[in-house]
Amino acid sequence: MRTTVGWQAEPGNGTATTPALRRAPLERRDLRPDDLAVRVDYCGVCHTDLHAVRTRAADGGEAPLVPGHEFTGVVTGTGAAVTRFRAGDPVAVGNIVDSCGACAMCEKGQENFCHTFPTLTYGGTDRVDGSTTLGGYSREYVLGERFAYALPAGLDPAAAAPLLCAGITVWEPLRALGTGPGTRVAVAGLGGLGHLAVKFAVALGADTSVISRSPDKAEDARRLGARGFLVSTDPGQLAAARDRFDILVDTVSAPHDLGAYLRLVALDGTLSHLGHLGPVTLDTLDLLIGRKKLSSAGSGGRKGTAEMLAFCAAHGITADIELLPSARVNEALDRLSRGDVRHRFVLDLSDLDRPGAQGPTDG
Amino acid sequence: MRTTVGWQAEPGNGTATTPALRRAPLERRDLRPDDLAVRVDYCGVCHTDLHAVRTRAADGGEAPLVPGHEFTGVVTGTGAAVTRFRAGDPVAVGNIVDSCGACAMCEKGQENFCHTFPTLTYGGTDRVDGSTTLGGYSREYVLGERFAYALPAGLDPAAAAPLLCAGITVWEPLRALGTGPGTRVAVAGLGGLGHLAVKFAVALGADTSVISRSPDKAEDARRLGARGFLVSTDPGQLAAARDRFDILVDTVSAPHDLGAYLRLVALDGTLSHLGHLGPVTLDTLDLLIGRKKLSSAGSGGRKGTAEMLAFCAAHGITADIELLPSARVNEALDRLSRGDVRHRFVLDLSDLDRPGAQGPTDG
Repeated sequence: MRTTVGWQAEPGNGTATTPALRRAPLERRDLRPDDLAVRVDYCGVCHTDLHAVRTRAADGGEAPLVPGHEFTGVVTGTGAAVTRFRAGDPVAVGNIVDSCGACAMCEKGQENFCHTFPTLTYGGTDRVDGSTTLGGYSREYVLGERFAYALPAGLDPAAAAPLLCAGITVWEPLRALGTGPGTRVAVAGLGGLGHLAVKFAVALGADTSVISRSPDKAEDARRLGARGFLVSTDPGQLAAARDRFDILVDTVSAPHDLGAYLRLVALDGTLSHLGHLGPVTLDTLDLLIGRKKLSSAGSGGRKGTAEMLAFCAAHGITADIELLPSARVNEALDRLSRGDVRHRFVLDLSDLDRPGAQGPTDG
Repeated sequence: MRTTVGWQAEPGNGTATTPALRRAPLERRDLRPDDLAVRVDYCGVCHTDLHAVRTRAADGGEAPLVPGHEFTGVVTGTGAAVTRFRAGDPVAVGNIVDSCGACAMCEKGQENFCHTFPTLTYGGTDRVDGSTTLGGYSREYVLGERFAYALPAGLDPAAAAPLLCAGITVWEPLRALGTGPGTRVAVAGLGGLGHLAVKFAVALGADTSVISRSPDKAEDARRLGARGFLVSTDPGQLAAARDRFDILVDTVSAPHDLGAYLRLVALDGTLSHLGHLGPVTLDTLDLLIGRKKLSSAGSGGRKGTAEMLAFCAAHGITADIELLPSARVNEALDRLSRGDVRHRFVLDLSDLDRPGAQGPTDG
C-alpha cells in the first residue's frame, strides 16, 4: 500500500452542527495496471462534503470519511496499462471514479447514471477490493485512468477544481435542454453551482437572468454576465416575470416552494431542480398550466465532462474561488454552512507536505 | 332568453358516492353578435364530470351544475357578426368557451393556459354577464364562434365528441414532446385518454406500448396498435423495461407512485402526468438519475385542437365509445366510477327532444 495524508472525519469527531476534520495518515492502493497516482493540489469544497461530514458526526458510522470530489493535480505514477497519461500531466477528477462500463447509460457516456450506480470518489465501494473510497481532501489519490480528465492548459488549476462537480452538474442539464442564443435562462441561487450556471449560460449565448433573495447580489450577477435580476422575495417582480424563462436552473440548496419557480417558466419550458435532493411536493396544476416540466440532474458522464472542460478552456471559464490552505478546512465548512462564500472554497493541499497540524485548532 | 333541457345536478340531489342528475329545463342566453346556437347531439362523459357531480352532491353548492365539455352537434343559429359558421354546419366544442384573447398564452394559441384563466364550458363564469356556464349534457349550447370547431366530414359525430377533451388532452403533450417515428412511447391506463393516446402515438409513427394493471388488456392494446405491453404489477417486467421510453403518457386517474413510472423513462425523457390532478410527491433522485422530466398538460388551445381534428380526419381516428341515450347518464357515471367502460361513454342527447323522464328512475 501507498501512504499519504488527508483530512478525515471520524466517529465522535465534531458534532452535527460543528463538524471537525482531523489530519490523518491514509492508505492508497498500489497501482493496478490502469491506475494513476495523482498528487492532489486543489480540491473544491462542495455542499455534499458538508452534508457527509455532518451525517458522519451524527450517525457515528464505521468507515473513515475523507471528503472531496472535485480536484485537480498532477500525475505522479502510472500503471503498466495506462495509455492516456504520463507522470507530470495535469489532471482533474470529479465525483465518480468507476462505473460498470457496460450498461445502457455507460454506453451513452452517462456513467453518472450507471445502472449499477457509479463508484463515488469518496464513500463509494471499490469494485475490485470492496474498500471504501477516500476523497480528495488528501495529498494523493489513486484511480483508474478512465475517470481522470486532462486539465486543459490555460485553466488555473485551483479555480478549475470546482468545474468537476459544481460545473458539470449545471453544464449537462443546460446542454441537454438546448441552451443557446435565443434561450431565456434564469439561475436561482448564486453559490458554487449557480455562479457557474450563469457563466455557462452566458457563454452559450443565452439571455441570462439571476434570481436571488438578496438585492445586493445584483451587482455580482451583472459581473458574471447576467442581463436580468429578480428578487425572489418581491411578489411584484415575480408576477411580472410569469412564463418568462425557457429554462430555470434552480441551485437553491434548502427545501423550497417549486410552484413559485414553475410560474416563471415559459410554455413547454423546464425547471431544472439541482440544488436540493430529497422528496419534493408540487401541485400538478403548476406543471399543467403552461405544460411545464420539472427535471433534475447531477454530476456528469465522461463525455460531458470532457466537453465541458474543452468549452471552459475555449471561453476562459473557471470558478470564482476563495483559496484556503487545507488546514483551514473546518473554517471553510463552517462558513459554507452559513452561505458565507463567493462562490466556492478550494483547499490548497500543498500544506500537507509539511509535517504539522493534527487537528482544527492547530491549523 | 332561450330555453332548452338538460341533465342537472342540484344540491341534495344524490350523494357523493351515488350521484344523480335530473332532467331539467335550462336557459341559454340570447345570441350575441359573435354567438352560435348549437344543437348538441353527442356529449362524452369525462372523469371531470364525475368529479364535479360528486363534489356538488357533497358540498351542496349554490349554482346549478350541468356537466359536459366534449360535444358535437349542428349549428342552428348565428349572431350577426359570425363569419365562420352557418346554420346546418357540424361543429365540435371542448372544455373552453372563452379566454382573454390578449395574454401571451392566448397569443400563442394556448388559450387553455390563458393568464386570466379560460372560461370553462361548465362551471365557468361568463365574461360578459357573469353567469355560470352550463355544459353539454343538454340539447342546446350557446357560445362565441371562436371556440367552436368545424367537425371534419368523415368523422362519426358521436365517436368524435371525446376528441374534444380526452383527445386534445393527450394530443398536445404528445406533439409538444416531439412524438414521431423513432420515439418510444408508453401509455399507462387505457381509459378515455389512454386509448386515444395510443391511437395518436401509433398514427404519429411512434413505437408504442401500453402499461396496464390487467394482463387482460393486452389484446385491446394490440388492437389499438400498440406493439408492446407491460403489466404494471409485475416487478420483473418493470425492471426489464428500465429507461426504455422517451415519453410515458400517464393517464391513470387515481393517485399513484410516480417513481415506478419514472424509472421506465429513458435518458432525457419525459413522464407526462395527465390523469390525476392535485399534489404529487416524488423523490428528486427519480428525476436526477437519467435526467428525467415530469410534465403535465390538460385540454388544449384553438390551434392544437384544430390541428388534432385535421389529423383525426386524415387518419380516421375517433374514440372507441359506448353510446347511451342521455336518460341513462346516471348509469354511465356509475359505471365510469367503477372503470367499467371501453373506452368512453357518449350520451345521445336526441332523447331530450321527447317529453319525458324527469329523474334517474324514469330513464
